[in-house]
Amino acid sequence: MIKKIEHIGIAIDNVNSSMAVFDKLLDKRSYKSELVSSEGVKTHFYQLGEIKIELLETINQSSPISKFLSKKGQGMHHLAFHVDDIHQELSRLIALGFEAIGDVKKGADQKLICFLHPKTTCGVLIELCQEQAEE
Amino acid sequence: MIKKIEHIGIAIDNVNSSMAVFDKLLDKRSYKSELVSSEGVKTHFYQLGEIKIELLETINQSSPISKFLSKKGQGMHHLAFHVDDIHQELSRLIALGFEAIGDVKKGADQKLICFLHPKTTCGVLIELCQEQAEE
Repeated sequence: MIKKIEHIGIAIDNVNSSMAVFDKLLDKRSYKSELVSSEGVKTHFYQLGEIKIELLETINQSSPISKFLSKKGQGMHHLAFHVDDIHQELSRLIALGFEAIGDVKKGADQKLICFLHPKTTCGVLIELCQEQAEE
Repeated sequence: MIKKIEHIGIAIDNVNSSMAVFDKLLDKRSYKSELVSSEGVKTHFYQLGEIKIELLETINQSSPISKFLSKKGQGMHHLAFHVDDIHQELSRLIALGFEAIGDVKKGADQKLICFLHPKTTCGVLIELCQEQAEE
């Protein structure tokens, strides 16, 4: 069951200038950065209330973020919902006609993640994410 | 000061099919709809934790949402931050180089609102909103 938004992902094309913008906008600093090699992305996190804003920096030209930037330019990339059981929630959604992009996999921030195809979600790239215990 | 996200605005091109999608995705119904004639938009609200998701339906062809849909298609349109004092926060941001789109005005949901131009915010259309007492 989707209970809350976990984070909002924003694709950026220059990490230094974009972090300077968000530092000023939110009047705080990013509290951590994390490399997710499998996705070709470095993620920079800001906490705002119960939600995180994640700036997504591409680290290679074949990453999904690189393709998004080429096609649409920088801006909001995806909306992530917290779920307690990602496999159960994905089954519920697929039974209702939603389409997953690939399988459940390990994402940033100790999460299991899966994306829903925007063609089934009004053009919004949706991520489901489930917290994992630290290894 | 920006303390939390108030809502996420999503531009939709067909209200019936889009509300059916979000009803299924979130496993709940929209709790209210509101016409904002000045913006040419009808807004449909879902509550999710401390955040609202607002589906934005255009009601005329010259509205900002209509233009957004023509240019980019449906999807995430803006990110709104709650502020206690919109005039004070806007002054802080303008002094830092951010650019407002127009003046502070009355928006949906009993709010005073103002937008920041996405060219100064990494391609993200940002709304500031301040709660007003019910009239």
